[in-house]
Formats: sequence, structure tokens, C-alpha cells
Amino acid sequence: MDLIASLQCEDQPGIVHAMTSAVLACGGNIIENQQFTDPTTNSFVMRTRFETSQNLEGATKALKDGLAKFNPDLRIRPTEEKPRVVVMVTKESHCLRDLLYLVELGELRIEIPLVISNREDLKSLVESHGVKFKYLPVKDGSKLDQENEVLKLIGELNIDFVVLARYMQILSKQFCERLPGKIINIHHSFLPGFKGAKPYHQAHDRGVKIIGASAHFVTNDLDEGPIIEQDVAHVTHIATPDELIAIGRDIERRVLSKAVKYFADDKIFIVGKRTVVFS
Amino acid sequence: MDLIASLQCEDQPGIVHAMTSAVLACGGNIIENQQFTDPTTNSFVMRTRFETSQNLEGATKALKDGLAKFNPDLRIRPTEEKPRVVVMVTKESHCLRDLLYLVELGELRIEIPLVISNREDLKSLVESHGVKFKYLPVKDGSKLDQENEVLKLIGELNIDFVVLARYMQILSKQFCERLPGKIINIHHSFLPGFKGAKPYHQAHDRGVKIIGASAHFVTNDLDEGPIIEQDVAHVTHIATPDELIAIGRDIERRVLSKAVKYFADDKIFIVGKRTVVFS
Amino acid sequence: MDLIASLQCEDQPGIVHAMTSAVLACGGNIIENQQFTDPTTNSFVMRTRFETSQNLEGATKALKDGLAKFNPDLRIRPTEEKPRVVVMVTKESHCLRDLLYLVELGELRIEIPLVISNREDLKSLVESHGVKFKYLPVKDGSKLDQENEVLKLIGELNIDFVVLARYMQILSKQFCERLPGKIINIHHSFLPGFKGAKPYHQAHDRGVKIIGASAHFVTNDLDEGPIIEQDVAHVTHIATPDELIAIGRDIERRVLSKAVKYFADDKIFIVGKRTVVFS
Amino acid sequence: MDLIASLQCEDQPGIVHAMTSAVLACGGNIIENQQFTDPTTNSFVMRTRFETSQNLEGATKALKDGLAKFNPDLRIRPTEEKPRVVVMVTKESHCLRDLLYLVELGELRIEIPLVISNREDLKSLVESHGVKFKYLPVKDGSKLDQENEVLKLIGELNIDFVVLARYMQILSKQFCERLPGKIINIHHSFLPGFKGAKPYHQAHDRGVKIIGASAHFVTNDLDEGPIIEQDVAHVTHIATPDELIAIGRDIERRVLSKAVKYFADDKIFIVGKRTVVFS
Repeated sequence: MDLIASLQCEDQPGIVHAMTSAVLACGGNIIENQQFTDPTTNSFVMRTRFETSQNLEGATKALKDGLAKFNPDLRIRPTEEKPRVVVMVTKESHCLRDLLYLVELGELRIEIPLVISNREDLKSLVESHGVKFKYLPVKDGSKLDQENEVLKLIGELNIDFVVLARYMQILSKQFCERLPGKIINIHHSFLPGFKGAKPYHQAHDRGVKIIGASAHFVTNDLDEGPIIEQDVAHVTHIATPDELIAIGRDIERRVLSKAVKYFADDKIFIVGKRTVVFS
Repeated sequence: MDLIASLQCEDQPGIVHAMTSAVLACGGNIIENQQFTDPTTNSFVMRTRFETSQNLEGATKALKDGLAKFNPDLRIRPTEEKPRVVVMVTKESHCLRDLLYLVELGELRIEIPLVISNREDLKSLVESHGVKFKYLPVKDGSKLDQENEVLKLIGELNIDFVVLARYMQILSKQFCERLPGKIINIHHSFLPGFKGAKPYHQAHDRGVKIIGASAHFVTNDLDEGPIIEQDVAHVTHIATPDELIAIGRDIERRVLSKAVKYFADDKIFIVGKRTVVFS
Repeated sequence: MDLIASLQCEDQPGIVHAMTSAVLACGGNIIENQQFTDPTTNSFVMRTRFETSQNLEGATKALKDGLAKFNPDLRIRPTEEKPRVVVMVTKESHCLRDLLYLVELGELRIEIPLVISNREDLKSLVESHGVKFKYLPVKDGSKLDQENEVLKLIGELNIDFVVLARYMQILSKQFCERLPGKIINIHHSFLPGFKGAKPYHQAHDRGVKIIGASAHFVTNDLDEGPIIEQDVAHVTHIATPDELIAIGRDIERRVLSKAVKYFADDKIFIVGKRTVVFS
Repeated sequence: MDLIASLQCEDQPGIVHAMTSAVLACGGNIIENQQFTDPTTNSFVMRTRFETSQNLEGATKALKDGLAKFNPDLRIRPTEEKPRVVVMVTKESHCLRDLLYLVELGELRIEIPLVISNREDLKSLVESHGVKFKYLPVKDGSKLDQENEVLKLIGELNIDFVVLARYMQILSKQFCERLPGKIINIHHSFLPGFKGAKPYHQAHDRGVKIIGASAHFVTNDLDEGPIIEQDVAHVTHIATPDELIAIGRDIERRVLSKAVKYFADDKIFIVGKRTVVFS
């Protein structure tokens, strides 16, 4: 069986040795191993992919026992198991399309049992890919009700994480706190940054030569969770605000898909305010 | 004679035609021509490189006469004429080294008759390249005196523009106003931006995946003049703050050298808060 | 009326002046103008977008008359007119999907009245986008018949150009000669290049750190027509051949879409063995 | 003491465990650990940086004993120890300048006791940096004598590796075989590749949109050793061959410096025809 073990704990001597001992103890052979000690938080993180003749339960027990004294966050899963993902959208389709396309191609190893939207615009697109679409509008004063509905569906469908693929609603504090480190968002990024409405128009007025996008985890403050992935494109004075928006869409979809792929492969760890990404 | 004409005026029909008529009138042949109408400010800018059998005075007169009715900012120079540049530095050498190297190589067609610094650290480096070095420290309350000294040298040496190659002093309002659109600066840029001291340490704490640099014109507000050029590098969680700084140096020197090259070739126009760069 | 004039001829003094005179003569105002003289072939190319109160015929006559003495290749079209494109595919969908998506989004201003394939794999994908799909298999000895069928459809549908979006058949010499400068292809590119089968496996064996893609015009020699656009991605030793292929797909679709966009906007000129692209 | 252990052997279960046991046995704590199993050659490579209270001899013995049964290539060095490097040049200075600059800055942790050249052009540049310069011309029939002189100096100076920073002589088979995996070279790379003289002129004629550079180990066949690092820059039709060469210089120096930095940090392993680079 091919398994991925993800481990996070305070750094101390002997962890790698304990992990490799435990893998050997269940007859395993390490295929991939990546580790990092964060100097700021003194967190140690490790991702170990290994093959073993034991089943999931046996291997899990062996690793838990072998590593118990380090009191780690430890997670073991079959490599082949696909995380279950709810995608939330509003009316822009570019990020959603990329996710659906990469899933169909087999490049993005997730299952998307449901797309939830606060608008109906993308219903037919979603259903044409054989995916269920749930319309959950947010009306005045109804946000908490709508979010509770979302949480209920997430629970029923046994969802592993949530992707905000241009979902244009700010999630409430309690929603975010229910799913810590489980919500990935995408948003544009500029040098310098811009506050307020119509950022691409501001970027145009300011004559930026680069526009970018950031994928990040959602915490209570929408744009400020740990950054997972960022990329940019070069632009010139010729580009109109609409052309900047189009270029931005292309960056956004690539950055979000990359972040989702890393997360689906258990390659992202949150340490303090930042991420370790084993790319 | 090979000449570059740079023109800026309010957009209106017939400008390109008038320019090409004027070039023909002085027996010229257009080698390069680039133009742009800025939709926000309705400014029209054009850069025309042409060969003519006339001398600079004759060609200048022909163009001024032919374009008079558009009341343009018009500048004509021999293509071969190298702009004269003062470089101002403090103690970091990376940007200065790149400029000196590219000048020696013949890739950057400027003359650097003088490097001015508020510290003595880079004196021997500058002099080893056969360039004069002037130490003009800024002491408490002496900034205006020092700046007046700089302005005096700029006047005496017939300087075309000033490059701040990691000059770590904020220039006064009156200094900036004496050289509008004639001072180029470089600074780091991040997604998101950071205020305050030790920005690379902040970027590290925040786990950014991209660091960048911007070259821009200096206005009264040091970091906020029209942007000329920007670039970025991808970084990971592994990079320490010192490594981020080293990567930043590499981007800074490339971005600044590129901006200086564009300016030396008369390829930059300021329209409102942004630049047109004919790259 | 908003028009685009594309002009190509031997370089000589007065062309830009003649063009601007002709535009003025039909009451026009130039909005965009880009030009280039190729030093190797002495070809002059110019793309001028202008507004005029005249209709297409009037403006065309004015420009043809005004520029007659330069004997140019001259083409004038309404800016809003969308080129009609046939896309040819085999079984890989990534490039086709990107084209369909960008058309739906309004970013790629072309019409795709037909997709032709030598296989049936992509039929339902194409039809789900409301585009006609024609299955034209190539059997032993039937290639010329199949190509004649393609040429017939191209003629009937009034097609402007053909995009090979991973069409895995080599086109015959006579097919290519019937559509010179009208067929755009995409293929992978490596540093160094590889001959023969399974190029991504070869690239893996050779340990390349970059993989790329090139969009180019098709001439008799499939991979050797003038290059339109190229891009690359960085890869490491970790990537398996399958992962290299996946990364390659992402580059291919972006590079091809960009090339098609340039062509649809009349921004590409062929001069000798290379292209001028007014990006 | 801060040490780096580099290990290469046939892959088999228990290696990581043996290494971590050995590190624990000498009271060490692992700071960095990277590993990779090459699926083609079944080679296992690992780079482990660790702190220990033991000295170099003690730690070396502990690791050698602990790993003996895997019969590895094993190398242990103090992290602070700077490799000693001979740089070979001809007359182009850009790569050499970058190396000297980065060494002075402390970013490139190597010592350069000697620069060897077959021409005298760069003598004063080298000596102005306080580095010895040895002029060893290659005359008709004298190549082997010259190379023997180089090898003698490399032996006397206790050199760890050789960097060809635009050294325009082809090294003989026997020279290369004396220093396997110890010579790094830089050369331009294009899409597509070009054979023969004046590659940048060929690239210009062919209208490439990207130019690049590759750093690689030298084997008997100059351009064909395992690739260490590659990068590219985008170019347009506007660039003349000389401008392409200038852009190429900028890429070459960055790519070579990066490769040298990886090698100086023991981050490069050769497996078959390719490299594993722990970047």
C-alpha cells in the first residue's frame, strides 16, 4: 500500500529517526521524504510517502506508537485517496473551469461532489460536467443561515476542504473558525497594493508593470491568511483595465489550481503566519 | 545624421502626419516610430528615430516648424549622444556595480562623470572604474546644504538625469521639484506591501512566495512616483531573511539597469501618474 | 468606423507619411500605429488602427490610392469583424478547451464555425459548446482525400485561418501551400531539442530544467515555420515524464491561445523566415 | 559543529534510518535533510545538514560506520568550509564579474585563488579584485601542454572544482576525465537549437522569441554533460543580434552563478545523465 504521512510538531532531535524506524517497523520503504524546521516558530514538519505491505490501520498504529513521545499532529492516508472538495463560486467561471478541466484530465486528484453558489449563473456549466450545483443565495440578513446550510452540506458530504473560486461573499468569523486551514481562496495582488473598489482600474491609473494573484488560506480576515502560491504577469501601458482583468483571470486560475493541487497532495503545512509548501 | 525626436502633446488628428511631413521635409527616413495615446489623460506621445542629411539645428527647426500648431513638448537629439548621469549611492554596491559594468561593456549608453555618496564606503570601488567620487555627508540639519551642493554639481557637470542606486536618504521636496521627471529610484516591492522597517524580515514572517523590485521616478513622495519597470523572483519557505535580501539585490540591479537603459534611449514618457515605456 | 489597416512592402522613405496622409484624407484619426523595418529583408510592416466617418469601401479606396506607388500588400478590415477559424484536433483537448473558453469569455475575438478531427474523441466536448464537429478520419492512403475535404469545408465556410490544436497528422505539402501563412500550429520545445518519439521522456532522461512550447506558422516542414510565440516553465528532477507532459499541456495552451489572439488582431507579419508580432 | 553529509548509493530500505541513527549516535541534530530516489537509475541521493558536538573526524567515523552496509559514496564537510575554485576565462568578462562580485558580497561561499586564461584581456580586472591571474595561451599543438599546466596548478592549489566562465577552448578528453563531475560550464541555449557559428545571428534570422542559457557539467562532449540550471528571457523581433547577445550575457551570468552556488553548497548530485539539484 502506498501511504502519505504528514507530521507536524515542535522541533527536537530524533524525530526523523523515529519516523524512519516506524516505517521500517511496518516493513515500509520510503519513496519521498521532505522536511523543514521553521526557525521562527521552531515547528518541524515532514511529509513521508512510503510503501508498506501493511494496511492503513496497521501502518497508522505503527507510526502513532513510534512517534508518540513527540506528541505530533500526525495524519496518514492512502496516496490514491482523493480529497473531497466543495467549490464555491459566484458568477465568474475562469477558476472553476480550470479546476473541472484538470479533474477531468486526471491531473488534479480531487473529487468535487458539489459546487455551491450564491448566484445561478454557472449552474449549466457545472451540470454539463456532471457535477451537482446548489444555489444558496445570500439575502439581507440571511448570511448566517446560508453559511449554516453550507456547513451542513459540507458535513453530510464528508468534505475535506473548500475552494473559493471567485466566491464574492465575505465569510463570517464563525464559518472560518469552523474550518481552520481548510478553506483556500484566490485574489489578485498588485505591486503596490490597492485598497478599495475596482483594483484593476486603480492598477491601470497607477501604471503598474506587473499584476499578480495569490492563493491563500482563509482566516477571519479574508485577504490575510497564510499565502500558498503567488504568480505575476508583466503588463505594459498599452493594456486597458479590461485587458488587465483578462490577464488577471489567467494568473488567478493557474495560481489557484496549483495551490489546490499542493493541498490535495498533502504538501502544505501552516506554521505560524506562513506556509511550508513541498513543491 | 541619426536623430531621436520625442514628442508629447494633447491628442488630436494630424500629429503623426505632421511629424512624417516634417521628417520628409528635411530629407529624412524614419527608422523607428512608436506612439501611444493615453486614454485617461488624452496625452499623445511619440518617439521617432530617423536619419537625415541635415544637421541637428536644421532638423530641429524643420520639426519645430512643422509641429508648431500642436504646441508639443518636443526634444530632438543625436542618437549617438550619451546622456550624462550622476549616480547617488550610500553603502550598498549592487546597483552601482551593475551600472558601471554595463557602461564599460557598452550596453548602457550613458556617461557617469560623478558618483555622489553620503558615505565613503564605495569610494575605492568607484575610483577603480575611473569615475570621480564625491563624499557629501548628511549631518543633522545639513540636508538642504548637502542637496544644494549636489544641485550645484549637477549644474556644473551638465547632467541629464540622476539615478538613486540605493541612496538611503529621503530627498527634500525642493530637490525633487528642481528635477521633475529626472530622478530614477529603485526599491523593493512585495505582494502584499509592507510598511515600516526591515521589509524582508516582514516578508519572511508573512511567508510571501514572490519578492520584487520597482524602478520609478521620484516625486515628492519617495515611493510613489510613476513606475518605470518591475520584476519579481519566486521564493519558498526555505529562504531566510538574508537570502531574501540577496535575491532582492539581484532583482533590484536588473530592474534599475533596465529602467536607466530605457531612459537613456528616450523611451520613457510620463503621462499623468503613469509611464509609457516603448520597450 | 473603427478600422485596422495592415501594410507590408519594401522599405522606402515616405510610406508612413503616405499612410497618415491617406488616413487624414478620409477624415480619420489614428488610434494605434505600430511599424517595423526588418533589417535583413528590408521589409517594412505597419499596422494602423484608425477611426473614420467613411465606410469600409471609401476608406479602402483612399488608402489604396494614397499608397499605390509603394505597391504594398494592404489589407483593411473593420476592427469589430471577427476572423472565422477552423480548429483541427485529434484527441488531446487542452488547447481546444482553452480556445473555446476564451471565445465564450469574449477575450478571443474569433468565430469557430467548425472543429475538424481525425478522431471522434472530442465530439461531445465540441458540441457541448454549441460548435459543429466534423469527423474526417485519415485512413491508409486517404490523406489527400481527407485534406481535400478539409479544404472544401474551409472554402464553403469562408474561413480566415486554421488552428492546429494538437492535430496529430502531418499535413501534405499541397495542403500547406494552399494556405500559406494561414495555419498556426503548437508544439513542445526543449533546451536542447530532441528528435524522435516520446520527447518528454527524452527530456526527463536528459534532466532538462526547462520545458517549453512554440506556436508557429506551418510551412511544408511541420516544425519549422516562422515562430509566433514561445514560453517555458521551470521543472526539477522530481517531475516524472507524466508530470512533464502535464506541465507541457499548460504551456502549450497558453502559448497557442496567445498566438491565435495576435493573429486575430492582425498583429502578426511574416518577414522572411521570422515574424514581427506587435504585442 | 555544523556539517553537511552528502550520500549517494543504490536505493534500498533503511538508508534514511541508518543515517538518522548515525547522526543521533554522534549527538547530532538534523537541520536540513533532502533526499531523492531516481526511478531510472535506482540511485538514492541524500544531503543532510546537522549540528553535532563532535569534531569532523568523529562525526565522519560515526556516519561511515553506520552506513557501511549500503556501500555509499559519502562525503562529510564543515558547512563553513569554502570550496576552492579555479575560474577559466578567455576574453568575455560578464560571468567572471558576477562570480567575483558575489564572492565579495559574501553570497557565493567559495574561494577563488586563481583565474586562468588563454588570453591576457582580463588580467587587470582579475587583479583589481585581488585575485591571481595566470596567462596560459594555447598555441598550435600546445593544448595538451597547456592543460597539463592547468592540472598542475589545480593540484598544487588544492582546488575543489573548475568553472568555465566563457572559456572558449574545447577541453581534451583526458582533461575532462581527470576531473569528472568537477567542471561546470555555461553556454547559450535556444528553442530550437542551432548548430554552427554565430548562434545569436542564427537565432535572429530564425525569429526566436526566447533565448536561454544552460549551466552543465563538462564531460568529453562539451555541450552535453548533465544540466544543472537553465533560464531564458523573452525577446521580440526588435532585438538586433547584438542586443540578443547582450540579453544572453545577462542570462548566462545569472545561470552560471546559480549553478556554482548550488555546487558550493553540495546541493548537486549526478545520477546517470541528469542532475538532482536540491534548490
